[in-house]
Amino acid sequence: MRTRPLKVALLGCGVVGSEVARIMTTHADDLAARIGAPVELAGVAVRRPSKVREGIDPALVTTDATALVKRGDIDVVIEVIGGIEPARTLITTAFEHGASVVSANKALLAEDGATLYAAAERHGRDLYFEAAVAGAIPLIRPLRESLAGDKVNRVLGIVNGTTNFILDKMDTSGAGYTEALDEATALGYAEADPTADVEGFDAAAKAAILASIAFHTRVRLDDVHREGLTEVTAADIASAKRMGCTVKLLAICERAADGRSVTARVHPAMIPLSHPLASVREAYNAVFVESEAAGQLMFYGPGAGGAPTASAVLGDLVAVCRNQLAGATGPGESAYTQLPVSPMGEVVTRYHISLDVADKPGVLAQVATVFAEHGVSIDTVRQQGKDGEASLVVVTHRAPDAALSGTVEALRKLDTVRGVASIMRVEGE
Amino acid sequence: MRTRPLKVALLGCGVVGSEVARIMTTHADDLAARIGAPVELAGVAVRRPSKVREGIDPALVTTDATALVKRGDIDVVIEVIGGIEPARTLITTAFEHGASVVSANKALLAEDGATLYAAAERHGRDLYFEAAVAGAIPLIRPLRESLAGDKVNRVLGIVNGTTNFILDKMDTSGAGYTEALDEATALGYAEADPTADVEGFDAAAKAAILASIAFHTRVRLDDVHREGLTEVTAADIASAKRMGCTVKLLAICERAADGRSVTARVHPAMIPLSHPLASVREAYNAVFVESEAAGQLMFYGPGAGGAPTASAVLGDLVAVCRNQLAGATGPGESAYTQLPVSPMGEVVTRYHISLDVADKPGVLAQVATVFAEHGVSIDTVRQQGKDGEASLVVVTHRAPDAALSGTVEALRKLDTVRGVASIMRVEGE
Repeated sequence: MRTRPLKVALLGCGVVGSEVARIMTTHADDLAARIGAPVELAGVAVRRPSKVREGIDPALVTTDATALVKRGDIDVVIEVIGGIEPARTLITTAFEHGASVVSANKALLAEDGATLYAAAERHGRDLYFEAAVAGAIPLIRPLRESLAGDKVNRVLGIVNGTTNFILDKMDTSGAGYTEALDEATALGYAEADPTADVEGFDAAAKAAILASIAFHTRVRLDDVHREGLTEVTAADIASAKRMGCTVKLLAICERAADGRSVTARVHPAMIPLSHPLASVREAYNAVFVESEAAGQLMFYGPGAGGAPTASAVLGDLVAVCRNQLAGATGPGESAYTQLPVSPMGEVVTRYHISLDVADKPGVLAQVATVFAEHGVSIDTVRQQGKDGEASLVVVTHRAPDAALSGTVEALRKLDTVRGVASIMRVEGE
Repeated sequence: MRTRPLKVALLGCGVVGSEVARIMTTHADDLAARIGAPVELAGVAVRRPSKVREGIDPALVTTDATALVKRGDIDVVIEVIGGIEPARTLITTAFEHGASVVSANKALLAEDGATLYAAAERHGRDLYFEAAVAGAIPLIRPLRESLAGDKVNRVLGIVNGTTNFILDKMDTSGAGYTEALDEATALGYAEADPTADVEGFDAAAKAAILASIAFHTRVRLDDVHREGLTEVTAADIASAKRMGCTVKLLAICERAADGRSVTARVHPAMIPLSHPLASVREAYNAVFVESEAAGQLMFYGPGAGGAPTASAVLGDLVAVCRNQLAGATGPGESAYTQLPVSPMGEVVTRYHISLDVADKPGVLAQVATVFAEHGVSIDTVRQQGKDGEASLVVVTHRAPDAALSGTVEALRKLDTVRGVASIMRVEGE
């Protein structure tokens, strides 16, 4: 074994960073044996240097992250500060000064992964980011490496723990969205400002990363159709149950049937209870991958948290260190297919539509005509009437999303349709 | 991209080998883009050269596998013939002649992995074997690489599709073992001679491989305690249901609580219906991994079959080829912990014991005394009596397996115990 240690700079020392530092210390011997050389924490860049950080030598702490990555003797930079800047500049600077980078920064990778990959390649260094998607669950490596000899057609995942906790709570207790969000906040599953989670931004960033890797093309955050779960009601959940389904916020990346384009989207959807993703409870994450040869695979585990995310970071650290000792690099960007990303309107899916209608003869015929005019075939209709009002629940067959939303648009204009109570896509069948 | 192709020799062209050859041809462009150089099928060693093999140039086919691996221009040897010899000699010869090896050979890796690893290291070549455990499910790579910065404490898996199909059939239809095996055979899930599957040899080989990698030590097939499922009865399954459990044939690899030894075993066990492994149906495989930082992870997918296994082989092929182009090698054997493998008697687990007893006062007291004398604490007892006969179902708390089997031994000697109807371990709680 080499005795001269590999030097690691840690950018950020919050929930994840402090756990990374802790494990690097407590498991130093194991890491050294697995890498083939010891690793040494050479510096920790933080915003608040006065905060006491147990187990971290205060002499290593600095507020000058730029100076740290420019030191020239750093072998690996671990970036766990998040956000676009200064993270992006720090990472590219790290590459320029000879370091490889392990990052957990989903927002940056989804926004501008290409810039990072290019900088890594220019300087012959590694960019690893297992922790950016689904925390501890090995997912990036299986997609980049294990399935490198296969053709992935679909990735369907629960990649945000906060929203899964909320939906699970609504499903099991019958609570409404606001009540379930309050409980998630009280238990620490949701942040004070839950926007990034509940509006689907977090999941959309992960969808962009997963789609890019799965389809060997570039998919950016802006390419991902995004709908949050703030409009999901207790009635939607109850309606899903009647259909033998549950509601999940899904990240869905698909290759088009003709193979010439891909799509990526995040939205609430009904999935059958028999689908393996339906039983993913609380804040757990799970990702379902469908590929040509392997068939259906699922990866399940904790999608967030300090220790789980640190596990993913440290797995990458071992790989990157091994590569450096071997004078090699791991896989870089693979975007050779250059497949375009189609807009949401071209996604082929199914709708579950709940309408409030007048309770009089001929309404169903009118409604059915609108579907037919838009080329949308109806799977099932359920009518419930009381006191001159009635509700009509229509589940469609698969059709382009544009045709489905055009249908809904036209339904709203019918005199006999008093309102569209809810629209939800049906997936995973 | 390099234009000179990497040359691949395929040893074996059965269900898996023919699928590997097919995908290498149909997806040649994708493989080349992902590797950075084209790959060329340079030879196929088979036993029956006269058999027509669609899509394979007959000029490539040979019966002389030894000459093929000795050719000297082969970059990668894919071994999918199985068994100990001639596979072992062919693999070590391949390393001697400069090739890296991708193998799906669980029996050989469990029996004598050390010899293969040593030969790979001596010649600076790669030994990859994702396909050896759980078919298409990425498991070896996540354990060897993704979790390389973590400490795995437990691996609990359904790693044999045939036996899971049989148990699932028994569970859903109430069929007995023989009836369920017949159906598995008729549907092609069980081989004409099902011994390797139903007696647990196949799962034990996989347990040895998983334990070795998870705990960074050497665990061989002989170290794995093995019990098949041939004695599981419809009554056991019904009894499991009453407890809110189901029966699965599990491969269980554990680090002892004091961290100084490991155990590996394969046997039928009851697991709670709430455990993610309980819902693994038909011939699917799933492996549950518990590690210190990552927590609980699960990997799920098809555990066998030509295409899924080929997916795993080709993922390894891409990795091995990339390593060769970079002049590097992937992870080799990691056995630095040198942890001893403890015998089954030291495993700490729970028993579900069903006794046929005389229906008279004092029996339960006698039985309870025997448990107490062996230091085994009872969790629950259920008594059912009719016509002077009674059955007593005892579920214990956790205790060393030796104490539990000593208890059963002593129970058999009691006059009031007419027979021990069944004994099954309870896991996954």
